[in-house]
Amino acid sequence: MRDVAIVGAYTTKFGELWERSLRDMVVEAGIGSIEDAGIDGKDIDAMYIGNMSGGRFIGQEHLGALIADYAGLAKEFHVPSTRVEAACASGGLALRQAVMAVASGYYDVVIAAGAEKMTDIDGSGVTDTLAAAADREWEGIMGATFPGLYSMIARLHMKQYGTTREQLADVAVKNHENGINNPIAQYRNKITIDQVINSTKVSEPFTILDCSPVTDGAASVIVVPAEDARKYTDTPIYVRASTQASDTISLHDRRDITTLDATVAAGRWAFEQAKLKPEDIDMVEVHDCFTIAEICAIEDLGFFKKGDGGRATLDGETRIGGKIAVNPSGGLKSCGHPVGATGIKQACEAVYQLRGEAGKRQVDNVKYAMTHNVGGTGATCAVHIFSTERGQ
Amino acid sequence: MRDVAIVGAYTTKFGELWERSLRDMVVEAGIGSIEDAGIDGKDIDAMYIGNMSGGRFIGQEHLGALIADYAGLAKEFHVPSTRVEAACASGGLALRQAVMAVASGYYDVVIAAGAEKMTDIDGSGVTDTLAAAADREWEGIMGATFPGLYSMIARLHMKQYGTTREQLADVAVKNHENGINNPIAQYRNKITIDQVINSTKVSEPFTILDCSPVTDGAASVIVVPAEDARKYTDTPIYVRASTQASDTISLHDRRDITTLDATVAAGRWAFEQAKLKPEDIDMVEVHDCFTIAEICAIEDLGFFKKGDGGRATLDGETRIGGKIAVNPSGGLKSCGHPVGATGIKQACEAVYQLRGEAGKRQVDNVKYAMTHNVGGTGATCAVHIFSTERGQ
Repeated sequence: MRDVAIVGAYTTKFGELWERSLRDMVVEAGIGSIEDAGIDGKDIDAMYIGNMSGGRFIGQEHLGALIADYAGLAKEFHVPSTRVEAACASGGLALRQAVMAVASGYYDVVIAAGAEKMTDIDGSGVTDTLAAAADREWEGIMGATFPGLYSMIARLHMKQYGTTREQLADVAVKNHENGINNPIAQYRNKITIDQVINSTKVSEPFTILDCSPVTDGAASVIVVPAEDARKYTDTPIYVRASTQASDTISLHDRRDITTLDATVAAGRWAFEQAKLKPEDIDMVEVHDCFTIAEICAIEDLGFFKKGDGGRATLDGETRIGGKIAVNPSGGLKSCGHPVGATGIKQACEAVYQLRGEAGKRQVDNVKYAMTHNVGGTGATCAVHIFSTERGQ
Repeated sequence: MRDVAIVGAYTTKFGELWERSLRDMVVEAGIGSIEDAGIDGKDIDAMYIGNMSGGRFIGQEHLGALIADYAGLAKEFHVPSTRVEAACASGGLALRQAVMAVASGYYDVVIAAGAEKMTDIDGSGVTDTLAAAADREWEGIMGATFPGLYSMIARLHMKQYGTTREQLADVAVKNHENGINNPIAQYRNKITIDQVINSTKVSEPFTILDCSPVTDGAASVIVVPAEDARKYTDTPIYVRASTQASDTISLHDRRDITTLDATVAAGRWAFEQAKLKPEDIDMVEVHDCFTIAEICAIEDLGFFKKGDGGRATLDGETRIGGKIAVNPSGGLKSCGHPVGATGIKQACEAVYQLRGEAGKRQVDNVKYAMTHNVGGTGATCAVHIFSTERGQ
């Protein structure tokens, strides 16, 4: 198996991009990462596209070929292009496939992109489409939506561990603080704990400010064999672990809904692959689709003991400069969550942070960065560890 | 890169399976291939699921995790499971990802499955969902459907090469002849050229009998490293080539709509990978979604010169016992075309034929078998070559 590195990264502006189509955004992201890598489009051997629901959001499946075509790589070069889907973890899985395609020796220069265009349908359409990430026959048909499902996780976490409403709210406050310094973020405004708690109710205990928003956007990275990486850049970022785990799709089938076992498994496998421990990680982008999701993630990945995530957040331990910087990009909450793009945007943030290019949100001395991308209520989890050092 | 082999294969009955859900069919296919390989479900390291449009057909995305869950591999074992989509080539691409996952060394026992449940929505819903495989903004919105698009290919092929209505019809006649002997086939009845030509018109020159039907079904294969294959079976089938190519998603952007350049590219790359020539191949399962598609495929893969596919069909050269057996399974026409499952079902047929287990439709002395799986009007093409011999 060949080691793998990332030599180019680019994220489009995230937001309600009324004037932009999916194909338009993803071509911007692709060209951005190609320029960042200093390569030519013709150098691309294969493409992977993370996208959750082009079929429902824009009436378009077959997005791999569509994007190869609009990137100018289909007609003359016939570059193979594959769409990968695992709900909100689609981007993380597209990155994994790109890593395997290079590791296997099949291809030498592979682009992994993620994209979602969510604002072309109305709000109830978005909610129903996102519910296709849960179990349609046992959750969706009963009326369960994602805010509802995650709010059950939050309620039980509060009961079992004493997690407070203020602690939940502070996840959003902290991520907005970080996102202010991220030019691609959808919401670059400071919010307070009071504002979060007193905002429009969505599903007890969540208000609208506990929830990641509906977003359009795309992101892309270029993956090459580690041994070739310095041909392209002086600052290659090595992929030290790439793991993925599954869990039951329905929340009611879980062992304990406050622990995402797929996160536990993918995290443990990633630390084993990279021969690292949680304390080695300097920054992590976790999947904060709802405020409780970040608290579960930092516990389930082993950065804090179970039940201590809320306390750690309110004590500032997850802020930039704290024990571990969690979501320095602003996370899904502030950046927005174009579902298929998020996993790749997380990888872009890891690349920027490891290169020291993150501007005012830069974390000091980042040697190891992790990304954590979740599908549904945790039926799929992808974890990656990146480093400036290739490792043994 | 490790060589790869298939040690288990299973296809469910194809048809209008009103009483069966997608999860039900795919679990049958998975268990079938696991039993065929003589392994235990717990041996599975990773899963790939080809599916075109669960989101639209059954309101369900996130099918990787769903299927891992219903296979009993998610809750305890957290087996990573990834859905791959490229319209009607979804199955072929799922097989490719499984091949790469094993070749890379990431995993040792990988299941590649394909499934589609198409009969839960009405006919116009099916047509509109399938149109999501074409370019929604430049084809679908103008009213183009797949029978319409392929009929344009047929009309131009008839004009350019003198292909006749009888030759087109004989593709369906031949595939029904073969499908009679395939227990999983949706339509196991003999038809005549006259019946095809005089059947209900769909889109000039096609009647309903030129078109593959709407179908439910699933299929699955087990992929392992070649060096381990004989641990599982005395009849391993080696993957000698696995290739994929893209073309423009819109038909009007093509160089020449009667040649599918993605088929030409993927076929050429496959012969290069396997160090073989078209004349080495004993049987091929091609993507006959419409009768013209089989004629284009056997020309574009190099089995017959351009324009000669119709003549060769009517002269019996593509029948079992002819120059090359084309679609001995009955193809998409007779077996049915559950879009995400087709690419895996083709691989199953190659396995059965290479093992000599194809019963009354067995082709004599099969040493090399090929599968050819197309998405859309040829924007994606996956080609595989299989053999009883491992090769160098």
